Amino acid sequence: MNIPKEVTIIEVGPRDGLQNEKNPVPTATKIEFINALKAAGIKQIELTSFVSPKWVPQMSDAKEIIDACLDSERNFVLAPNRKGIERVYDTNVKHVAVFVGVSSSFNEKNINKTTEESMSELQPIIKELKEKGYFVRACISTSFYCPYEGKIDPADTEALCSQFVEFGVDELSVADTVGMANPHESYELFERLHNKLEGKVLITGHFHDTRGMALANIYACLQAGITRFDCSSGGLGGCPFAPGATGNVATEDVVFMLEQMGIRTGISLEGIAEAVDLIKPHISRPIGSKMYHLTKQTM
Amino acid sequence: MNIPKEVTIIEVGPRDGLQNEKNPVPTATKIEFINALKAAGIKQIELTSFVSPKWVPQMSDAKEIIDACLDSERNFVLAPNRKGIERVYDTNVKHVAVFVGVSSSFNEKNINKTTEESMSELQPIIKELKEKGYFVRACISTSFYCPYEGKIDPADTEALCSQFVEFGVDELSVADTVGMANPHESYELFERLHNKLEGKVLITGHFHDTRGMALANIYACLQAGITRFDCSSGGLGGCPFAPGATGNVATEDVVFMLEQMGIRTGISLEGIAEAVDLIKPHISRPIGSKMYHLTKQTM
Repeated sequence: MNIPKEVTIIEVGPRDGLQNEKNPVPTATKIEFINALKAAGIKQIELTSFVSPKWVPQMSDAKEIIDACLDSERNFVLAPNRKGIERVYDTNVKHVAVFVGVSSSFNEKNINKTTEESMSELQPIIKELKEKGYFVRACISTSFYCPYEGKIDPADTEALCSQFVEFGVDELSVADTVGMANPHESYELFERLHNKLEGKVLITGHFHDTRGMALANIYACLQAGITRFDCSSGGLGGCPFAPGATGNVATEDVVFMLEQMGIRTGISLEGIAEAVDLIKPHISRPIGSKMYHLTKQTM
Repeated sequence: MNIPKEVTIIEVGPRDGLQNEKNPVPTATKIEFINALKAAGIKQIELTSFVSPKWVPQMSDAKEIIDACLDSERNFVLAPNRKGIERVYDTNVKHVAVFVGVSSSFNEKNINKTTEESMSELQPIIKELKEKGYFVRACISTSFYCPYEGKIDPADTEALCSQFVEFGVDELSVADTVGMANPHESYELFERLHNKLEGKVLITGHFHDTRGMALANIYACLQAGITRFDCSSGGLGGCPFAPGATGNVATEDVVFMLEQMGIRTGISLEGIAEAVDLIKPHISRPIGSKMYHLTKQTM
Protein backbone atom coordinates (compact mmCIF):
# COMPACT_ATOMS: atom_id res chain seq x y z
CA MET A 1 0.00 0.00 0.00
CA ASN A 2 1.32 3.39 -1.01
CA ILE A 3 1.46 5.53 2.13
CA PRO A 4 3.33 8.87 2.47
CA LYS A 5 6.39 9.22 4.72
CA GLU A 6 5.47 12.64 6.05
CA VAL A 7 2.24 14.46 6.87
CA THR A 8 1.53 18.10 7.70
CA ILE A 9 -0.85 18.85 10.54
CA ILE A 10 -2.71 22.17 10.48
CA GLU A 11 -3.80 22.91 14.04
CA VAL A 12 -7.23 24.54 14.12
CA GLY A 13 -7.87 24.34 17.88
CA PRO A 14 -7.31 28.02 18.75
CA ARG A 15 -9.80 29.11 16.05
CA ASP A 16 -12.19 26.32 15.00
CA GLY A 17 -11.80 24.58 18.36
CA LEU A 18 -12.59 27.59 20.52
CA GLN A 19 -14.91 29.74 18.39
CA ASN A 20 -18.11 28.17 19.71
CA GLU A 21 -16.98 27.53 23.26
CA LYS A 22 -19.61 29.19 25.46
CA ASN A 23 -17.38 30.12 28.36
CA PRO A 24 -15.07 33.04 27.55
CA VAL A 25 -11.49 31.73 27.47
CA PRO A 26 -9.10 34.38 28.83
CA THR A 27 -6.83 35.86 26.16
CA ALA A 28 -3.77 35.06 28.27
CA THR A 29 -4.81 31.38 28.36
CA LYS A 30 -5.27 31.29 24.59
CA ILE A 31 -1.79 32.74 24.16
CA GLU A 32 -0.31 30.15 26.52
CA PHE A 33 -2.22 27.43 24.65
CA ILE A 34 -0.90 28.59 21.28
CA ASN A 35 2.65 28.85 22.58
CA ALA A 36 2.40 25.34 24.05
CA LEU A 37 1.11 24.00 20.73
CA LYS A 38 4.06 25.55 18.95
CA ALA A 39 6.42 24.11 21.56
CA ALA A 40 4.86 20.69 20.84
CA GLY A 41 6.03 20.98 17.24
CA ILE A 42 2.98 22.53 15.54
CA LYS A 43 4.03 24.86 12.73
CA GLN A 44 0.88 25.56 10.72
CA ILE A 45 -1.89 26.91 12.88
CA GLU A 46 -5.17 28.82 12.69
CA LEU A 47 -4.57 31.50 15.30
CA THR A 48 -7.95 33.25 15.39
CA SER A 49 -10.53 34.90 13.15
CA PHE A 50 -11.68 38.39 12.27
CA VAL A 51 -15.41 37.84 12.60
CA SER A 52 -18.16 39.86 14.22
CA PRO A 53 -17.64 39.95 17.99
CA LYS A 54 -21.43 40.12 18.23
CA TRP A 55 -21.83 36.67 16.60
CA VAL A 56 -18.61 35.07 17.79
CA PRO A 57 -17.61 36.79 21.05
CA GLN A 58 -14.96 34.16 21.72
CA MET A 59 -12.88 35.59 18.84
CA SER A 60 -13.16 39.24 19.90
CA ASP A 61 -9.54 39.24 21.10
CA ALA A 62 -8.22 38.39 17.61
CA LYS A 63 -5.91 41.39 17.46
CA GLU A 64 -4.31 40.66 20.85
CA ILE A 65 -3.81 37.01 19.89
CA ILE A 66 -2.09 37.99 16.66
CA ASP A 67 0.10 40.61 18.38
CA ALA A 68 1.24 38.04 20.93
CA CYS A 69 1.55 34.90 18.79
CA LEU A 70 2.30 35.68 15.15
CA ASP A 71 5.54 34.06 13.99
CA SER A 72 7.16 33.43 10.62
CA GLU A 73 5.44 30.06 10.01
CA ARG A 74 1.99 29.66 8.44
CA ASN A 75 -0.17 31.37 11.05
CA PHE A 76 -3.65 31.58 9.58
CA VAL A 77 -6.31 34.08 10.45
CA LEU A 78 -9.84 33.42 9.19
CA ALA A 79 -11.49 36.43 7.56
CA PRO A 80 -14.88 35.55 6.10
CA ASN A 81 -15.60 38.85 4.32
CA ARG A 82 -14.30 42.25 3.19
CA LYS A 83 -14.56 43.66 6.72
CA GLY A 84 -12.39 40.85 8.10
CA ILE A 85 -9.87 41.29 5.28
CA GLU A 86 -9.53 45.01 6.08
CA ARG A 87 -8.70 44.02 9.66
CA VAL A 88 -6.07 41.56 8.35
CA TYR A 89 -4.44 44.46 6.45
CA ASP A 90 -3.90 46.24 9.78
CA THR A 91 -1.74 43.36 11.02
CA ASN A 92 1.42 41.55 9.91
CA VAL A 93 -0.57 38.38 9.16
CA LYS A 94 0.44 36.89 5.79
CA HIS A 95 -1.76 33.76 5.76
CA VAL A 96 -5.49 34.21 5.38
CA ALA A 97 -8.30 31.66 5.49
CA VAL A 98 -11.61 32.29 3.78
CA PHE A 99 -14.74 30.21 4.11
CA VAL A 100 -17.65 28.88 2.05
CA GLY A 101 -20.12 25.97 2.23
CA VAL A 102 -20.78 23.71 -0.74
CA SER A 103 -24.34 23.57 0.55
CA SER A 104 -26.02 26.89 -0.09
CA SER A 105 -28.54 26.30 2.74
CA PHE A 106 -25.66 25.83 5.13
CA ASN A 107 -23.87 28.89 3.80
CA GLU A 108 -27.02 30.98 4.23
CA LYS A 109 -27.63 29.81 7.81
CA ASN A 110 -23.99 30.48 8.58
CA ILE A 111 -23.15 33.76 6.85
CA ASN A 112 -26.46 34.83 5.37
CA LYS A 113 -25.39 34.50 1.74
CA THR A 114 -25.89 31.85 -0.92
CA THR A 115 -22.77 29.94 -1.93
CA GLU A 116 -22.83 31.81 -5.25
CA GLU A 117 -23.02 35.18 -3.49
CA SER A 118 -20.10 34.17 -1.26
CA MET A 119 -18.03 33.16 -4.26
CA SER A 120 -18.81 36.42 -6.07
CA GLU A 121 -17.71 38.35 -3.01
CA LEU A 122 -14.57 36.22 -2.52
CA GLN A 123 -13.26 36.36 -6.09
CA PRO A 124 -12.00 39.98 -5.99
CA ILE A 125 -10.86 39.57 -2.38
CA ILE A 126 -8.72 36.54 -3.26
CA LYS A 127 -7.35 38.34 -6.34
CA GLU A 128 -6.37 41.28 -4.16
CA LEU A 129 -4.86 39.06 -1.47
CA LYS A 130 -2.78 37.19 -4.04
CA GLU A 131 -1.59 40.47 -5.63
CA LYS A 132 -0.50 41.63 -2.21
CA GLY A 133 1.44 38.39 -1.68
CA TYR A 134 -0.81 36.66 0.84
CA PHE A 135 -1.13 32.88 1.18
CA VAL A 136 -4.84 32.05 0.84
CA ARG A 137 -6.48 29.00 2.32
CA ALA A 138 -10.09 28.24 1.32
CA CYS A 139 -12.08 26.35 3.95
CA ILE A 140 -14.83 24.38 2.24
CA SER A 141 -17.63 23.31 4.56
CA THR A 142 -20.26 20.61 4.02
CA SER A 143 -18.11 18.93 1.38
CA PHE A 144 -19.81 15.56 2.00
CA TYR A 145 -23.05 16.13 3.90
CA CYS A 146 -25.15 19.09 4.96
CA PRO A 147 -27.41 19.08 8.02
CA TYR A 148 -30.15 20.69 5.90
CA GLU A 149 -29.59 19.24 2.41
CA GLY A 150 -28.23 15.78 3.27
CA LYS A 151 -25.73 14.12 0.96
CA ILE A 152 -23.72 16.53 -1.21
CA ASP A 153 -22.87 15.55 -4.77
CA PRO A 154 -19.06 15.14 -4.99
CA ALA A 155 -19.27 16.88 -8.39
CA ASP A 156 -20.52 20.03 -6.62
CA THR A 157 -17.64 19.91 -4.14
CA GLU A 158 -15.18 19.37 -6.97
CA ALA A 159 -16.66 22.27 -8.96
CA LEU A 160 -16.36 24.63 -5.99
CA CYS A 161 -12.78 23.50 -5.36
CA SER A 162 -11.90 24.06 -9.02
CA GLN A 163 -13.44 27.53 -8.90
CA PHE A 164 -11.26 28.39 -5.90
CA VAL A 165 -8.19 27.15 -7.77
CA GLU A 166 -9.15 29.46 -10.66
CA PHE A 167 -9.45 32.30 -8.14
CA GLY A 168 -5.84 31.54 -7.20
CA VAL A 169 -6.03 30.07 -3.68
CA ASP A 170 -3.00 28.22 -2.32
CA GLU A 171 -4.80 25.65 -0.20
CA LEU A 172 -8.17 23.92 -0.05
CA SER A 173 -9.31 22.64 3.34
CA VAL A 174 -12.07 20.23 2.39
CA ALA A 175 -14.29 19.60 5.41
CA ASP A 176 -16.68 16.90 6.56
CA THR A 177 -18.45 19.48 8.72
CA VAL A 178 -21.09 17.15 10.17
CA GLY A 179 -18.80 14.14 10.68
CA MET A 180 -20.89 11.91 8.42
CA ALA A 181 -18.39 10.96 5.71
CA ASN A 182 -17.36 7.33 5.56
CA PRO A 183 -13.89 6.23 4.43
CA HIS A 184 -15.22 5.05 1.08
CA GLU A 185 -16.63 8.53 0.34
CA SER A 186 -13.46 10.17 1.63
CA TYR A 187 -11.31 8.08 -0.64
CA GLU A 188 -13.50 8.80 -3.64
CA LEU A 189 -13.73 12.57 -3.14
CA PHE A 190 -10.08 13.10 -2.25
CA GLU A 191 -8.83 10.82 -5.02
CA ARG A 192 -10.94 12.87 -7.42
CA LEU A 193 -9.58 16.17 -6.07
CA HIS A 194 -6.03 14.83 -5.99
CA ASN A 195 -6.20 13.61 -9.58
CA LYS A 196 -7.65 16.89 -10.81
CA LEU A 197 -5.90 19.52 -8.68
CA GLU A 198 -2.65 18.10 -7.29
CA GLY A 199 0.22 20.42 -8.17
CA LYS A 200 -2.14 23.37 -8.58
CA VAL A 201 -3.14 23.71 -4.93
CA LEU A 202 -2.46 22.13 -1.53
CA ILE A 203 -5.29 19.76 -0.61
CA THR A 204 -6.10 19.31 3.08
CA GLY A 205 -8.61 16.98 4.73
CA HIS A 206 -10.70 18.32 7.61
CA PHE A 207 -12.63 15.68 9.57
CA HIS A 208 -14.88 15.63 12.59
CA ASP A 209 -15.03 12.54 14.79
CA THR A 210 -18.78 12.80 15.48
CA ARG A 211 -19.41 9.19 14.45
CA GLY A 212 -15.93 7.85 15.21
CA MET A 213 -14.86 7.64 11.56
CA ALA A 214 -12.28 10.47 11.45
CA LEU A 215 -9.18 8.26 11.66
CA ALA A 216 -10.63 5.82 9.12
CA ASN A 217 -11.27 8.79 6.81
CA ILE A 218 -7.73 10.04 7.27
CA TYR A 219 -6.38 6.57 6.51
CA ALA A 220 -8.50 6.57 3.34
CA CYS A 221 -7.17 10.01 2.39
CA LEU A 222 -3.56 8.87 2.81
CA GLN A 223 -4.31 6.20 0.23
CA ALA A 224 -5.70 8.89 -2.09
CA GLY A 225 -2.40 10.78 -1.85
CA ILE A 226 -3.47 13.40 0.71
CA THR A 227 -0.74 14.45 3.14
CA ARG A 228 -2.29 17.41 4.97
CA PHE A 229 -4.93 17.30 7.71
CA ASP A 230 -6.64 19.87 9.90
CA CYS A 231 -6.75 18.72 13.53
CA SER A 232 -7.72 20.26 16.84
CA SER A 233 -5.77 19.47 20.00
CA GLY A 234 -8.00 17.86 22.60
CA GLY A 235 -10.64 17.37 19.89
CA LEU A 236 -11.92 20.87 20.71
CA GLY A 237 -14.60 22.31 18.52
CA GLY A 238 -17.66 21.45 16.54
CA CYS A 239 -20.20 23.58 14.79
CA PRO A 240 -23.31 25.18 16.28
CA PHE A 241 -24.95 25.48 12.87
CA ALA A 242 -24.64 21.75 12.25
CA PRO A 243 -26.88 19.86 14.67
CA GLY A 244 -25.12 16.85 16.16
CA ALA A 245 -21.77 17.85 14.72
CA THR A 246 -19.30 17.86 17.58
CA GLY A 247 -15.59 17.46 17.78
CA ASN A 248 -12.85 18.11 15.31
CA VAL A 249 -10.58 15.08 15.14
CA ALA A 250 -8.01 15.37 17.94
CA THR A 251 -4.48 16.31 16.89
CA GLU A 252 -3.01 13.81 19.35
CA ASP A 253 -5.09 10.90 18.00
CA VAL A 254 -4.05 11.67 14.43
CA VAL A 255 -0.39 12.14 15.40
CA PHE A 256 -0.37 8.84 17.27
CA MET A 257 -1.86 6.88 14.38
CA LEU A 258 0.45 8.45 11.83
CA GLU A 259 3.62 8.04 13.87
CA GLN A 260 2.69 4.39 14.60
CA MET A 261 2.41 3.92 10.83
CA GLY A 262 5.92 5.33 10.43
CA ILE A 263 4.68 8.67 9.08
CA ARG A 264 6.52 11.67 10.50
CA THR A 265 4.56 14.62 11.88
CA GLY A 266 7.21 16.32 14.02
CA ILE A 267 4.67 16.70 16.84
CA SER A 268 5.09 15.54 20.45
CA LEU A 269 2.14 13.83 22.17
CA GLU A 270 3.37 14.98 25.57
CA GLY A 271 3.61 18.52 24.25
CA ILE A 272 0.02 18.40 23.00
CA ALA A 273 -1.15 16.99 26.33
CA GLU A 274 0.56 19.90 28.11
CA ALA A 275 -1.19 22.37 25.80
CA VAL A 276 -4.56 20.70 26.40
CA ASP A 277 -3.92 20.85 30.17
CA LEU A 278 -3.73 24.65 29.88
CA ILE A 279 -7.02 25.07 28.02
CA LYS A 280 -9.00 22.24 29.66
CA PRO A 281 -10.20 24.20 32.74
CA HIS A 282 -11.96 26.64 30.38
CA ILE A 283 -13.67 24.07 28.16
CA SER A 284 -17.29 23.20 28.90
CA ARG A 285 -17.26 19.63 27.65
CA PRO A 286 -14.98 16.70 28.46
CA ILE A 287 -11.82 16.21 26.41
CA GLY A 288 -12.97 13.49 24.02
CA SER A 289 -9.64 12.46 22.53
CA LYS A 290 -8.20 9.04 23.32
CA MET A 291 -4.50 9.90 23.33
CA TYR A 292 -4.77 12.89 25.67
CA HIS A 293 -5.92 10.58 28.47
CA LEU A 294 -3.48 7.77 27.61
CA THR A 295 -0.56 10.19 27.30
CA LYS A 296 -1.40 11.72 30.68
CA GLN A 297 -1.25 8.26 32.29
CA THR A 298 2.39 7.86 31.33
CA MET A 299 3.61 11.45 31.89
CA MET B 1 -11.34 0.15 -4.30
CA ASN B 2 -12.49 -3.43 -3.79
CA ILE B 3 -14.89 -3.47 -0.84
CA PRO B 4 -17.21 -6.36 0.09
CA LYS B 5 -21.01 -6.06 -0.20
CA GLU B 6 -21.79 -7.90 3.03
CA VAL B 7 -20.12 -8.27 6.41
CA THR B 8 -20.80 -10.62 9.31
CA ILE B 9 -20.77 -9.18 12.82
CA ILE B 10 -19.97 -11.53 15.70
CA GLU B 11 -21.36 -9.95 18.85
CA VAL B 12 -19.07 -10.53 21.82
CA GLY B 13 -20.74 -8.19 24.31
CA PRO B 14 -22.43 -10.79 26.51
CA ARG B 15 -19.12 -12.65 26.99
CA ASP B 16 -16.07 -10.49 26.24
CA GLY B 17 -18.00 -7.32 27.05
CA LEU B 18 -19.28 -8.41 30.45
CA GLN B 19 -16.65 -10.84 31.74
CA ASN B 20 -14.62 -8.19 33.56
CA GLU B 21 -17.44 -5.95 34.64
CA LYS B 22 -17.02 -5.56 38.38
CA ASN B 23 -20.68 -5.16 39.30
CA PRO B 24 -22.60 -8.44 39.06
CA VAL B 25 -25.07 -8.16 36.18
CA PRO B 26 -28.30 -10.04 37.03
CA THR B 27 -28.78 -13.17 34.93
CA ALA B 28 -32.25 -11.99 33.92
CA THR B 29 -30.75 -8.75 32.58
CA LYS B 30 -28.14 -10.65 30.57
CA ILE B 31 -30.91 -12.77 29.05
CA GLU B 32 -32.94 -9.67 28.16
CA PHE B 33 -29.78 -8.11 26.68
CA ILE B 34 -29.05 -11.17 24.54
CA ASN B 35 -32.66 -11.39 23.36
CA ALA B 36 -32.61 -7.70 22.44
CA LEU B 37 -29.36 -8.15 20.50
CA LYS B 38 -30.94 -11.00 18.56
CA ALA B 39 -34.02 -8.87 17.92
CA ALA B 40 -31.69 -6.19 16.54
CA GLY B 41 -30.54 -8.63 13.88
CA ILE B 42 -27.47 -10.20 15.52
CA LYS B 43 -27.10 -13.84 14.54
CA GLN B 44 -23.60 -14.88 15.58
CA ILE B 45 -22.98 -14.22 19.24
CA GLU B 46 -20.70 -15.20 22.11
CA LEU B 47 -23.24 -16.06 24.79
CA THR B 48 -21.02 -16.75 27.77
CA SER B 49 -18.01 -18.79 28.89
CA PHE B 50 -17.31 -21.86 30.98
CA VAL B 51 -14.47 -20.48 33.06
CA SER B 52 -13.69 -20.68 36.77
CA PRO B 53 -16.33 -18.76 38.74
CA LYS B 54 -13.56 -18.00 41.20
CA TRP B 55 -11.59 -16.01 38.59
CA VAL B 56 -14.47 -14.74 36.49
CA PRO B 57 -17.52 -14.55 38.80
CA GLN B 58 -19.46 -12.59 36.18
CA MET B 59 -19.67 -15.75 34.03
CA SER B 60 -20.83 -18.07 36.84
CA ASP B 61 -24.37 -18.15 35.39
CA ALA B 62 -23.18 -19.63 32.08
CA LYS B 63 -25.50 -22.63 32.28
CA GLU B 64 -28.60 -20.49 32.93
CA ILE B 65 -27.69 -18.15 30.06
CA ILE B 66 -27.33 -21.08 27.68
CA ASP B 67 -30.57 -22.69 28.83
CA ALA B 68 -32.45 -19.44 28.27
CA CYS B 69 -30.79 -18.14 25.09
CA LEU B 70 -29.39 -20.93 22.93
CA ASP B 71 -30.89 -20.93 19.45
CA SER B 72 -30.05 -22.59 16.16
CA GLU B 73 -27.65 -19.85 14.96
CA ARG B 74 -23.97 -19.69 15.84
CA ASN B 75 -24.16 -19.19 19.60
CA PHE B 76 -20.61 -19.47 20.90
CA VAL B 77 -19.55 -20.46 24.35
CA LEU B 78 -15.92 -19.90 25.33
CA ALA B 79 -14.28 -22.89 26.99
CA PRO B 80 -10.59 -22.30 27.64
CA ASN B 81 -9.65 -25.80 28.84
CA ARG B 82 -10.69 -29.44 29.28
CA LYS B 83 -12.85 -28.60 32.30
CA GLY B 84 -14.79 -26.02 30.28
CA ILE B 85 -15.20 -28.42 27.36
CA GLU B 86 -16.70 -31.06 29.67
CA ARG B 87 -19.26 -28.48 30.75
CA VAL B 88 -20.03 -27.73 27.07
CA TYR B 89 -20.77 -31.44 26.59
CA ASP B 90 -23.52 -31.18 29.23
CA THR B 91 -25.36 -28.58 27.08
CA ASN B 92 -26.81 -28.38 23.57
CA VAL B 93 -24.16 -25.83 22.54
CA LYS B 94 -22.64 -26.68 19.16
CA HIS B 95 -20.27 -23.71 18.72
CA VAL B 96 -17.22 -23.53 20.95
CA ALA B 97 -14.58 -20.83 21.26
CA VAL B 98 -11.10 -21.60 22.55
CA PHE B 99 -8.44 -19.10 23.44
CA VAL B 100 -4.67 -18.56 23.24
CA GLY B 101 -2.26 -15.62 23.19
CA VAL B 102 0.47 -15.26 20.58
CA SER B 103 2.52 -13.72 23.37
CA SER B 104 3.52 -16.43 25.80
CA SER B 105 3.95 -13.88 28.63
CA PHE B 106 0.38 -12.77 28.10
CA ASN B 107 -0.86 -16.34 27.94
CA GLU B 108 0.94 -17.18 31.20
CA LYS B 109 -0.47 -14.14 33.01
CA ASN B 110 -3.90 -14.98 31.70
CA ILE B 111 -4.20 -18.77 31.99
CA ASN B 112 -0.95 -19.76 33.67
CA LYS B 113 0.43 -21.70 30.70
CA THR B 114 2.92 -20.92 27.97
CA THR B 115 1.46 -20.57 24.48
CA GLU B 116 3.10 -23.89 23.58
CA GLU B 117 1.51 -25.61 26.59
CA SER B 118 -1.88 -24.17 25.61
CA MET B 119 -1.53 -25.41 22.06
CA SER B 120 -0.52 -28.90 23.26
CA GLU B 121 -3.57 -29.01 25.46
CA LEU B 122 -5.87 -27.65 22.75
CA GLN B 123 -4.80 -30.00 19.93
CA PRO B 124 -6.59 -33.13 21.24
CA ILE B 125 -9.53 -31.04 22.47
CA ILE B 126 -10.07 -29.51 19.01
CA LYS B 127 -9.69 -32.95 17.38
CA GLU B 128 -12.33 -34.32 19.70
CA LEU B 129 -14.67 -31.35 19.18
CA LYS B 130 -14.39 -31.68 15.42
CA GLU B 131 -15.04 -35.45 15.57
CA LYS B 132 -18.16 -34.73 17.59
CA GLY B 133 -19.32 -32.21 14.97
CA TYR B 134 -18.70 -28.95 16.83
CA PHE B 135 -17.88 -25.65 15.15
CA VAL B 136 -14.61 -24.40 16.68
CA ARG B 137 -13.58 -20.77 16.83
CA ALA B 138 -10.02 -19.99 17.97
CA CYS B 139 -9.64 -16.60 19.66
CA ILE B 140 -6.08 -15.38 19.19
CA SER B 141 -5.04 -12.67 21.63
CA THR B 142 -2.12 -10.25 21.40
CA SER B 143 -1.89 -10.78 17.64
CA PHE B 144 -0.26 -7.35 17.16
CA TYR B 145 1.03 -6.10 20.50
CA CYS B 146 1.46 -7.51 23.99
CA PRO B 147 1.42 -5.35 27.13
CA TYR B 148 4.49 -7.26 28.38
CA GLU B 149 6.40 -8.12 25.19
CA GLY B 150 5.53 -5.12 23.00
CA LYS B 151 5.28 -5.55 19.23
CA ILE B 152 4.49 -9.11 18.10
CA ASP B 153 6.14 -10.45 14.95
CA PRO B 154 3.37 -11.02 12.35
CA ALA B 155 5.19 -14.23 11.41
CA ASP B 156 4.48 -15.56 14.93
CA THR B 157 0.79 -14.70 14.63
CA GLU B 158 0.65 -16.30 11.21
CA ALA B 159 2.39 -19.45 12.50
CA LEU B 160 -0.08 -19.80 15.37
CA CYS B 161 -3.01 -19.25 13.00
CA SER B 162 -1.65 -21.91 10.62
CA GLN B 163 -1.23 -24.33 13.51
CA PHE B 164 -4.88 -23.83 14.47
CA VAL B 165 -5.90 -24.49 10.88
CA GLU B 166 -3.93 -27.75 11.00
CA PHE B 167 -5.76 -28.59 14.22
CA GLY B 168 -8.97 -28.20 12.25
CA VAL B 169 -10.63 -25.05 13.63
CA ASP B 170 -13.41 -23.40 11.62
CA GLU B 171 -12.73 -19.79 12.54
CA LEU B 172 -9.83 -17.62 13.66
CA SER B 173 -10.69 -14.49 15.64
CA VAL B 174 -7.48 -12.50 15.38
CA ALA B 175 -7.39 -9.89 18.13
CA ASP B 176 -5.67 -6.59 18.75
CA THR B 177 -6.08 -7.12 22.48
CA VAL B 178 -4.40 -3.91 23.61
CA GLY B 179 -5.88 -1.66 20.91
CA MET B 180 -2.45 -0.67 19.59
CA ALA B 181 -2.62 -1.88 15.99
CA ASN B 182 -2.59 0.78 13.31
CA PRO B 183 -4.40 0.34 9.98
CA HIS B 184 -1.14 -0.28 8.14
CA GLU B 185 -0.32 -3.22 10.43
CA SER B 186 -3.90 -4.48 10.23
CA TYR B 187 -3.81 -4.47 6.47
CA GLU B 188 -0.47 -6.25 6.39
CA LEU B 189 -1.35 -8.99 8.88
CA PHE B 190 -4.84 -9.66 7.54
CA GLU B 191 -3.72 -9.60 3.91
CA ARG B 192 -1.07 -12.16 4.87
CA LEU B 193 -3.60 -14.37 6.68
CA HIS B 194 -6.15 -13.95 3.90
CA ASN B 195 -3.65 -14.92 1.21
CA LYS B 196 -2.46 -17.95 3.14
CA LEU B 197 -5.61 -19.26 4.80
CA GLU B 198 -8.68 -18.01 2.92
CA GLY B 199 -10.87 -20.97 1.96
CA LYS B 200 -9.40 -23.11 4.75
CA VAL B 201 -10.84 -21.17 7.68
CA LEU B 202 -13.05 -18.15 8.43
CA ILE B 203 -10.90 -15.14 9.35
CA THR B 204 -12.37 -12.60 11.76
CA GLY B 205 -10.90 -9.30 12.94
CA HIS B 206 -11.24 -8.36 16.60
CA PHE B 207 -10.35 -4.76 17.45
CA HIS B 208 -10.36 -2.59 20.54
CA ASP B 209 -10.91 1.15 20.25
CA THR B 210 -8.46 2.08 23.00
CA ARG B 211 -6.62 4.55 20.79
CA GLY B 212 -9.51 5.35 18.46
CA MET B 213 -8.16 3.31 15.56
CA ALA B 214 -10.67 0.43 15.50
CA LEU B 215 -12.77 1.70 12.59
CA ALA B 216 -9.64 2.57 10.61
CA ASN B 217 -8.39 -0.97 11.24
CA ILE B 218 -11.68 -2.45 10.10
CA TYR B 219 -11.58 -0.33 6.96
CA ALA B 220 -8.05 -1.63 6.33
CA CYS B 221 -9.24 -5.22 6.87
CA LEU B 222 -12.06 -4.80 4.36
CA GLN B 223 -9.41 -3.89 1.81
CA ALA B 224 -7.50 -7.06 2.74
CA GLY B 225 -10.60 -9.13 1.97
CA ILE B 226 -11.81 -9.64 5.55
CA THR B 227 -15.61 -9.71 5.97
CA ARG B 228 -16.07 -10.80 9.60
CA PHE B 229 -15.60 -8.66 12.71
CA ASP B 230 -16.08 -9.18 16.42
CA CYS B 231 -17.90 -6.25 18.00
CA SER B 232 -19.41 -5.47 21.37
CA SER B 233 -22.64 -3.49 21.65
CA GLY B 234 -22.09 -0.30 23.63
CA GLY B 235 -18.34 -0.88 23.32
CA LEU B 236 -18.54 -2.98 26.48
CA GLY B 237 -15.43 -4.81 27.54
CA GLY B 238 -11.72 -4.59 27.72
CA CYS B 239 -9.15 -6.79 29.34
CA PRO B 240 -7.94 -6.63 32.95
CA PHE B 241 -4.70 -8.43 32.08
CA ALA B 242 -3.80 -5.83 29.48
CA PRO B 243 -3.08 -2.48 31.20
CA GLY B 244 -4.71 0.40 29.37
CA ALA B 245 -6.73 -1.86 27.10
CA THR B 246 -10.33 -0.78 27.30
CA GLY B 247 -13.25 -1.09 25.02
CA ASN B 248 -14.07 -3.54 22.28
CA VAL B 249 -15.12 -1.63 19.21
CA ALA B 250 -18.84 -0.84 19.50
CA THR B 251 -21.17 -2.91 17.31
CA GLU B 252 -23.27 0.16 16.52
CA ASP B 253 -20.25 2.21 15.37
CA VAL B 254 -19.11 -0.59 13.06
CA VAL B 255 -22.64 -1.17 11.73
CA PHE B 256 -23.09 2.54 11.00
CA MET B 257 -19.81 2.83 9.11
CA LEU B 258 -20.43 -0.31 7.10
CA GLU B 259 -24.04 0.50 6.21
CA GLN B 260 -22.99 4.03 5.19
CA MET B 261 -20.46 2.41 2.89
CA GLY B 262 -23.23 0.32 1.34
CA ILE B 263 -22.15 -2.87 3.10
CA ARG B 264 -25.03 -4.90 4.49
CA THR B 265 -24.93 -6.13 8.09
CA GLY B 266 -28.61 -6.87 8.73
CA ILE B 267 -28.36 -5.11 12.09
CA SER B 268 -30.58 -2.28 13.35
CA LEU B 269 -28.95 0.66 15.15
CA GLU B 270 -32.16 1.34 17.08
CA GLY B 271 -32.28 -2.30 18.10
CA ILE B 272 -28.72 -2.17 19.41
CA ALA B 273 -29.48 1.06 21.29
CA GLU B 274 -32.45 -0.68 22.94
CA ALA B 275 -30.24 -3.60 23.97
CA VAL B 276 -27.62 -1.21 25.40
CA ASP B 277 -30.36 0.60 27.33
CA LEU B 278 -31.12 -2.67 29.13
CA ILE B 279 -27.55 -3.38 30.21
CA LYS B 280 -26.39 0.21 30.80
CA PRO B 281 -27.66 0.59 34.41
CA HIS B 282 -25.40 -2.33 35.38
CA ILE B 283 -22.22 -1.13 33.67
CA SER B 284 -19.67 0.72 35.77
CA ARG B 285 -18.23 2.94 33.05
CA PRO B 286 -19.89 5.28 30.56
CA ILE B 287 -21.04 3.89 27.21
CA GLY B 288 -18.16 5.00 25.00
CA SER B 289 -19.68 4.35 21.60
CA LYS B 290 -20.58 7.27 19.33
CA MET B 291 -23.65 5.83 17.62
CA TYR B 292 -25.42 4.75 20.81
CA HIS B 293 -25.71 8.39 21.87
CA LEU B 294 -26.53 9.69 18.39
CA THR B 295 -29.14 6.98 17.80
CA LYS B 296 -30.79 7.75 21.14
CA GLN B 297 -31.14 11.41 20.10
CA THR B 298 -33.33 10.46 17.16
CA MET B 299 -35.35 7.62 18.73
